[in-house]
Amino acid sequence: MNEKEFLKELKEINFLQQALGILDWDIQTGMPEKASKERSEVNGYLYSLYFSKKIGPKIKEAIQYFSKHPDELSDTGKLVFEKVKEEYELEYKVPEELMSALTTATSTAHVQWQKARETKSFADFQEALTKNIELTKQLIPYWKKEEATNYDVLLNQYEPGMTVEILDQVFQQLKEGILSIRETLKEKGKEPDTSFLSRKMTKAQQEKFVVGVIKQLGYDFSRGRLDDTIHPFMIGINHNDARITTRWNEHDFQMAIFGVIHEAGHGMYEQNIDQKFAYTPIYQGTSMGIHESQSLFNEIIIGSNRSFWEKQYPFFQECAQGTFDDISFVDFYRSLKQTKASLIRIEADSLTYPLHIIIRYEIEKMIFNEGVEVAQLPAIWNQKYEEYLGICPENDLEGILQDVHWSGASFGYFPSYALGYMYAAQLLHALEQEVSLDEVLASDDYLPIKEWMKEHIHQYGASRKPTQLILDATKETLNPQYLIDYMKKIYFSVYQVEEIVKKKEG
Amino acid sequence: MNEKEFLKELKEINFLQQALGILDWDIQTGMPEKASKERSEVNGYLYSLYFSKKIGPKIKEAIQYFSKHPDELSDTGKLVFEKVKEEYELEYKVPEELMSALTTATSTAHVQWQKARETKSFADFQEALTKNIELTKQLIPYWKKEEATNYDVLLNQYEPGMTVEILDQVFQQLKEGILSIRETLKEKGKEPDTSFLSRKMTKAQQEKFVVGVIKQLGYDFSRGRLDDTIHPFMIGINHNDARITTRWNEHDFQMAIFGVIHEAGHGMYEQNIDQKFAYTPIYQGTSMGIHESQSLFNEIIIGSNRSFWEKQYPFFQECAQGTFDDISFVDFYRSLKQTKASLIRIEADSLTYPLHIIIRYEIEKMIFNEGVEVAQLPAIWNQKYEEYLGICPENDLEGILQDVHWSGASFGYFPSYALGYMYAAQLLHALEQEVSLDEVLASDDYLPIKEWMKEHIHQYGASRKPTQLILDATKETLNPQYLIDYMKKIYFSVYQVEEIVKKKEG
Repeated sequence: MNEKEFLKELKEINFLQQALGILDWDIQTGMPEKASKERSEVNGYLYSLYFSKKIGPKIKEAIQYFSKHPDELSDTGKLVFEKVKEEYELEYKVPEELMSALTTATSTAHVQWQKARETKSFADFQEALTKNIELTKQLIPYWKKEEATNYDVLLNQYEPGMTVEILDQVFQQLKEGILSIRETLKEKGKEPDTSFLSRKMTKAQQEKFVVGVIKQLGYDFSRGRLDDTIHPFMIGINHNDARITTRWNEHDFQMAIFGVIHEAGHGMYEQNIDQKFAYTPIYQGTSMGIHESQSLFNEIIIGSNRSFWEKQYPFFQECAQGTFDDISFVDFYRSLKQTKASLIRIEADSLTYPLHIIIRYEIEKMIFNEGVEVAQLPAIWNQKYEEYLGICPENDLEGILQDVHWSGASFGYFPSYALGYMYAAQLLHALEQEVSLDEVLASDDYLPIKEWMKEHIHQYGASRKPTQLILDATKETLNPQYLIDYMKKIYFSVYQVEEIVKKKEG
Repeated sequence: MNEKEFLKELKEINFLQQALGILDWDIQTGMPEKASKERSEVNGYLYSLYFSKKIGPKIKEAIQYFSKHPDELSDTGKLVFEKVKEEYELEYKVPEELMSALTTATSTAHVQWQKARETKSFADFQEALTKNIELTKQLIPYWKKEEATNYDVLLNQYEPGMTVEILDQVFQQLKEGILSIRETLKEKGKEPDTSFLSRKMTKAQQEKFVVGVIKQLGYDFSRGRLDDTIHPFMIGINHNDARITTRWNEHDFQMAIFGVIHEAGHGMYEQNIDQKFAYTPIYQGTSMGIHESQSLFNEIIIGSNRSFWEKQYPFFQECAQGTFDDISFVDFYRSLKQTKASLIRIEADSLTYPLHIIIRYEIEKMIFNEGVEVAQLPAIWNQKYEEYLGICPENDLEGILQDVHWSGASFGYFPSYALGYMYAAQLLHALEQEVSLDEVLASDDYLPIKEWMKEHIHQYGASRKPTQLILDATKETLNPQYLIDYMKKIYFSVYQVEEIVKKKEG
């Protein structure tokens, strides 16, 4: 065994992964509706080739050999080897019967979840969810390394290094910060007018605008593409092929425009990983949280920036061909940042969004660390929405059934969404030590932002863990205060809190 | 070895083929422009998996076993086995070095061909073409079974059972027929007015019309899709996924409209093969010629039919949103069938088209059966265009360099185009014994045409050879007279030959 041989095997595994990527992309963007049975057979076969190589004899041999002879690896080879070993150990340890039982269970659960959504009743999902939880609990011992609790093990699958101890503290602080901001806005803020947001804007008009914007931000269309889909996503096939997708609503331009800017953030991450990692498992984002930091930086940090919209609004008006000519820039900008308690996470605004995440986090923790009864979950869910957001779902579809993750046994994934947001605000603070975001976004050249992210985040791919990346980029560990301060700044400004306070005082 | 095991291996081979199909489709429809290097690596790897299974130990074992125990195969199994054996023998016999030399040579030749097109000079392609010819000549002995001449062997690769002896006779008759029709039209015909054909019709307008038409003809969009591409094609992934592509020109609606109708003909063939052949190598068209008969039946036989256009013209006018409102149906219909000698095959009309094919056929035969000097080819080409069409290319780009086939060493492929056309006319004659094409196309229900084709052609896939299919469907072997008679009917009518003759006589 030598490094060349090892990398060759990884390259072949990567080829299969790339093929699977294109096949998945095709399923979600345009495969003829009747072709799904055939396609799942093809994907199943290719996946079996991929998986049996990934835990196959060559990789096993490489792990044994290089564990004993680490010095025979180059610097890059060492980084790659660490990741391969980590993934191998995770996958090899688990008994095949258990993985196969989970695959069956999640298929069933997905069907049951869809059925329960129709009846709007958690009762129809309860049995399948219980099974998913039970099997996940059986998996935890195989995955466990030095984590303190069961739920820590699950968190680590998606965000290496993240713990319940950290999240409890961070989420508590964040929750209090948000609730306090909400309180202030309620008392002293002025609601923006949003009546014109549902004006018709055709797909072509929206597309012209958002494609123009993401090109400026640095998404490279010669190494990507934008397609229509039902559930928007980004898929990174390789360095030169990171595709994004969106859906369009002619009476809600925000959906596609912010959606595309979001996915372009994921795409820019994948387009800018150092090419020396190509064809290896470190050619990817390092965690869900870091990936989400990039998409949310685009969507929220840039997409909520006043200078950004001041610069782009004339172009937006031009694309809308007269539809928004009677709306002033200030009114338009304020309308984008209305905040309002809502039941559905994916429709939430950027202030209340983390509360949705925190609620599911708290419940997942109860499931895996406190052994709560599955039957109790809807009541707990509803009570928490009442407590944190002051509203209560009328049925389980609006409540606990809204997200797909549990049907796929993706427990521990949810916190990534809020982590990404906190990372984004913390990265903004670090970036502003060097570059003024307002100034860049007021100019014709947005690239300094991409360059900063490339230097501090993108280039490393999965060769550095999230904790290390954030520490190196921001000289600090995760600190939720940056997000709280950021939210205050944006929302107090949009809701004209200071002006109102001054007026009252004056 | 048993049939189940044999079919399982074929299924896995087919899965790899399906994956390769989607990857190819993606390359031609929307892959980001910079991703081609990575993609060719992925395709190369998957192709090697596919090919090594196709001539691998399991297939070898199956061939040995079932050659001795044919009775252990079901009826379908026997048909499948015949095809597998045939392909295996073709591929297994050829030395790997020779195939690999050909792959290298055709890559070089493709680059040289493109370069020669830029300089418009055959001299820049001559060396590479010579190499392609030489290697093909070395391959012929490995492929040869009982064919009479070298060129017969090449013909058989694309059209099993076709021979120089048959083609010489058939093409002679066809050529004479076409030249005679051209003579009559020149003497007694009235040229249609085509001045309005270049009026602008947007992509959306053209698409609305042609999608409507191919749905009526029976192309199933729930098992297919239509995309944009540079070089239009159809690709059959499986029973439920036969995709077509086109290119659009806003000032030449004929390009996309007849192009899409053509590709839909290929697509309908692939959508209607008997599902019992799924996952085997007989789930495909039986030959290039038969495939082309289906596309040309759609494009020319249906697309030149007066009743078809009489029925569709109001819909066409509606789609064009006023652009053709001043053009009468008769003038419009006549404009579509103008005939005029031209230098470029793919721009040729449906009367002169076969002459282009016959010229390249005659030259290919000279190369492989008569040992003509490669350096002589442009002169021969030009002299034949002068003789058959009365026009002469000004340079090699307009002449011998126009088609890609020789750069890929696809010698023997060309006659398929004319065979398809002759088959289409012969199938029309047979179909009309049962169904009146005019009546069906004047009605709201076009499906009887598709049903007839499905019954006589589509369902069999590659389980029957072209000669057998044509004999069964038409009760006759290939007979070019049907095409000649058909051309006479169409062109004499459009060019008002009889009316003019009567007028002169009157």
